Amino acid sequence: MVTEPNNWGRFGPDDQRGTLNLLTPAVVLDALRSAVTGEVLSLAMPIRGATSSPAPGTVPHLPGRPLPQHFMSVDGGDYAAGARPIGAGLRVADDALIVTHHGTTTHMDALCHMWSGDELYNGHPAARVRSYGATRCGIEHVGGVVSRGVLYDVPRRLGLGHLPADYRVPAALLEEIAVPRPGDVAVIRTGWPLVWERSREEYWSGQPGLSAEAGRWLAAHDVAAVAADNAAIGGLDAHGLAAEPIEDDLHLLLLHRHGVHLIELLWLEELAAAGRAEFVFVAAPLRVEGGTGSPLTPLAIL
Amino acid sequence: MVTEPNNWGRFGPDDQRGTLNLLTPAVVLDALRSAVTGEVLSLAMPIRGATSSPAPGTVPHLPGRPLPQHFMSVDGGDYAAGARPIGAGLRVADDALIVTHHGTTTHMDALCHMWSGDELYNGHPAARVRSYGATRCGIEHVGGVVSRGVLYDVPRRLGLGHLPADYRVPAALLEEIAVPRPGDVAVIRTGWPLVWERSREEYWSGQPGLSAEAGRWLAAHDVAAVAADNAAIGGLDAHGLAAEPIEDDLHLLLLHRHGVHLIELLWLEELAAAGRAEFVFVAAPLRVEGGTGSPLTPLAIL
Amino acid sequence: MVTEPNNWGRFGPDDQRGTLNLLTPAVVLDALRSAVTGEVLSLAMPIRGATSSPAPGTVPHLPGRPLPQHFMSVDGGDYAAGARPIGAGLRVADDALIVTHHGTTTHMDALCHMWSGDELYNGHPAARVRSYGATRCGIEHVGGVVSRGVLYDVPRRLGLGHLPADYRVPAALLEEIAVPRPGDVAVIRTGWPLVWERSREEYWSGQPGLSAEAGRWLAAHDVAAVAADNAAIGGLDAHGLAAEPIEDDLHLLLLHRHGVHLIELLWLEELAAAGRAEFVFVAAPLRVEGGTGSPLTPLAIL
Amino acid sequence: MVTEPNNWGRFGPDDQRGTLNLLTPAVVLDALRSAVTGEVLSLAMPIRGATSSPAPGTVPHLPGRPLPQHFMSVDGGDYAAGARPIGAGLRVADDALIVTHHGTTTHMDALCHMWSGDELYNGHPAARVRSYGATRCGIEHVGGVVSRGVLYDVPRRLGLGHLPADYRVPAALLEEIAVPRPGDVAVIRTGWPLVWERSREEYWSGQPGLSAEAGRWLAAHDVAAVAADNAAIGGLDAHGLAAEPIEDDLHLLLLHRHGVHLIELLWLEELAAAGRAEFVFVAAPLRVEGGTGSPLTPLAIL
Repeated sequence: MVTEPNNWGRFGPDDQRGTLNLLTPAVVLDALRSAVTGEVLSLAMPIRGATSSPAPGTVPHLPGRPLPQHFMSVDGGDYAAGARPIGAGLRVADDALIVTHHGTTTHMDALCHMWSGDELYNGHPAARVRSYGATRCGIEHVGGVVSRGVLYDVPRRLGLGHLPADYRVPAALLEEIAVPRPGDVAVIRTGWPLVWERSREEYWSGQPGLSAEAGRWLAAHDVAAVAADNAAIGGLDAHGLAAEPIEDDLHLLLLHRHGVHLIELLWLEELAAAGRAEFVFVAAPLRVEGGTGSPLTPLAIL
Repeated sequence: MVTEPNNWGRFGPDDQRGTLNLLTPAVVLDALRSAVTGEVLSLAMPIRGATSSPAPGTVPHLPGRPLPQHFMSVDGGDYAAGARPIGAGLRVADDALIVTHHGTTTHMDALCHMWSGDELYNGHPAARVRSYGATRCGIEHVGGVVSRGVLYDVPRRLGLGHLPADYRVPAALLEEIAVPRPGDVAVIRTGWPLVWERSREEYWSGQPGLSAEAGRWLAAHDVAAVAADNAAIGGLDAHGLAAEPIEDDLHLLLLHRHGVHLIELLWLEELAAAGRAEFVFVAAPLRVEGGTGSPLTPLAIL
Repeated sequence: MVTEPNNWGRFGPDDQRGTLNLLTPAVVLDALRSAVTGEVLSLAMPIRGATSSPAPGTVPHLPGRPLPQHFMSVDGGDYAAGARPIGAGLRVADDALIVTHHGTTTHMDALCHMWSGDELYNGHPAARVRSYGATRCGIEHVGGVVSRGVLYDVPRRLGLGHLPADYRVPAALLEEIAVPRPGDVAVIRTGWPLVWERSREEYWSGQPGLSAEAGRWLAAHDVAAVAADNAAIGGLDAHGLAAEPIEDDLHLLLLHRHGVHLIELLWLEELAAAGRAEFVFVAAPLRVEGGTGSPLTPLAIL
Repeated sequence: MVTEPNNWGRFGPDDQRGTLNLLTPAVVLDALRSAVTGEVLSLAMPIRGATSSPAPGTVPHLPGRPLPQHFMSVDGGDYAAGARPIGAGLRVADDALIVTHHGTTTHMDALCHMWSGDELYNGHPAARVRSYGATRCGIEHVGGVVSRGVLYDVPRRLGLGHLPADYRVPAALLEEIAVPRPGDVAVIRTGWPLVWERSREEYWSGQPGLSAEAGRWLAAHDVAAVAADNAAIGGLDAHGLAAEPIEDDLHLLLLHRHGVHLIELLWLEELAAAGRAEFVFVAAPLRVEGGTGSPLTPLAIL
């Protein structure tokens, strides 16, 4: 007899979801109308195991962070070497993944990821974020994001291949491109991932990003989330730090003060090439209880 | 200068995607029309770190598999203990996840996960599935699934809370409920996860699942994927094994021979309670290069 | 120019080493004289990866703890499957280990592993034990233990194959066997690991161990460390807990109040069979900075 | 009833131990006589978690390898934040370690770590080195090394602080310093770790090491193991590769053809400063079943 149903599948509006509460069924239905052609694009970079592959490549990431590790516990090589099949002939490959997503791969930040003082978003006590997980504002409260995505292709607007490292996108430029509706996901393209293949040193020399003013403008328009192809929504200096004063820090401004979820390290080149200003944006982080975020594969339905 | 664009975002039809190739833009557009109310449900069980939480709970899983581990590399406790904020006052929580998804959490199987003989799905050489990842039929070829979901609530049809452990769903019963269209995702409810809270021993005593005949029927109707709330799509005996002869093994039948992706260990209770026969089904596995599968959070848009 | 030498190799007496400070060079030299035959025995249980081995065995451990995971990032199977050798023909196997040693494998506890109140051993602030490691009393302060080992083969003394689960070894029995000198390592055999192969349920039904009085007697004799083949030095009840009142808790008594290091989950059967009361005991934990302990392979030189 | 004793503790001479078979009880007893002062030195570098420590330092390692990760599953910070003690007041810190030791920390190579063709050391089939571990020549066959250590302080002999990157130690120079006896461990100091603090770029620009001729000379003198403070016993070029032709590769020469175990990335500065030519060398790798090696803390007893 199940006396206490888990209700793992249900996530209604609550005070640990920030602006995701804007994603009412009506907003979701409206967002689905943004699909025109039905083409589906992934906005995720690949996750590559940082082990002894013959030619281990890497994807854009912040320096000094442990890269993902991917292991096989049994694989085709074992059978080639003589491993016995299971039962009458079944063969299997099985794997394991170690991932510290912040700064290394496409991911979403939970509301417990950053704060100042002793309180998380909405006054939840930061002391509840412990070694065994956050019992407030963890990523499991996100559920899934189904919303209208609005592409802000800033370098295209400026006639550039990518923004320069020290460029901070002003609110006025965003406004020229589009004004979001409540519940939209603002998808910010800087083009900075293109720098990776040219030079890691240049990629790590700084990063373009939103200005604080642009962050405030997006928050004022009640976007549900901000998603960008850079590492920190805001820009980074040559030390890999957000150089803004603390009241202008983009994470504090959006995540901590306004409950706006952040999605970082996207790959937006195919989306940009498709030339569509609006689309259906879907993102469903892993339901890690107490997680500070999750690697994920956001989708754009054009 | 980027001479070789990565094209990480693009995933068109190819011979490593199996029935997902059925998800043409037209099918996607058609699937989106299944949304009526705009309510979004998660179909994932939580991922719980199997470490020294004060009261570590667990979710339904197969015995003998390493459970997920979740660690914080910095958290609110550290600040309570006196850790210095970053810069002028920024505080951060950061985590890491170790996950071996098969058998432990809601996940999707890649086409390289199971085979017999020396060839994977579609004749790809199994010898290409190596310790450093599968260079054929890895989970990164899935991209995202956006399709019509059809719920087969088998216990409700039979007037049961959940199916008994030795029940194998016949094709005729599926046909009574609904006939899928090409590209649909067949979502099979057994109710077996409800047993977990009552008794782990009973949960591990076997599992209900599809009969081989039902698997063939679904494959013949060109479903894009089969998703179930049990651990192995087919049933399991008391030893945790699929007891069918190898030609009737559900994994070989669907994954290996027909390229039908499998999604397992779903949580379907809220979806079942909602009573909707059709909905939009979205699943986007992590883009793990060469992965045999991925943990994921499937969504149902009602 | 190296301005600040690391001095990684040096570990002199300091206040974070507890009774290990008794291991002066004179004590070490004296201990070496305990070697008579020169036979070397390992006192460690094997570390087995808890993944999809064809027949994954396990070794005695506490329930609910994540077992070690062992992965190959390249192996002989990959070469059998066609992987290219490095350069002119070099082939390599490389691996990774994930281990949470407490309760799962032979290991040594650091002085920061357990405490009560707000202070670790010797008054060090417990608030310095943080997510990024303990900056007080971590395992890296142990260096290496080279000492005289004294075997307390309690079941042999009592004419038993192993002690019963509820047996708590009295001080008087230890005293009958031998009186340790300052700096000795007391090696306590309960025989409980023998139960594992007979029945895991019986192994988990409780564990024999030292009485609090015996712990006090050992501390009063200034042993450098206590090493046992059970999981917690003291006994465990059917819930896997040390049922003693807190002033009698063996970990607090030895580790916290007296700075006596603990080594647990040893395999002592060959040592017992050798019938030697004294020997050279050597243990060198991994130099994990800020670690709460370390898996290790203690040696007995007979 | 234990019908099949595990005998985990026993490791006698066998054909998977290479030159360690030279470590007969008589050789061990003789080695212990090298202890004069009783001072114990660690020869290990620290293991530092590569996560979000406020100031994550690193130790000498090869580029592109995943660094160790160290996590706390509960710590003092959690109690500072209000976590409840266990029972009547017990507090605990518990951790987990992820380590890929080759190239990142002080470690010993198993005989299965490198080979050419289809056979490991002594003709064991390389196809037995699989994803779930090596069933031939794994690190668990090492047990423990207790032997006479002979220090070859090459830079001191040449009047240098450290050897230059392109220096390959000739056999004649080793012979000038000392001629090892069968079963000795040759401890080779290059001084290269001192370069790390000056410049990582310089550290990675190449590495000094043994010449092939010196390796042959050591093998001919039946050393039990070769231990060095560089990363690969032999030298490395600017690409991090052993540039020798395959018949001169130090790993193949020592490990594969002669069964001489290798211990790498030692820290030898205090040992060198102590000025002792001979000492007791003790090393006990973790008993990882099927492991390709193990992190470890070698000890020198002076």
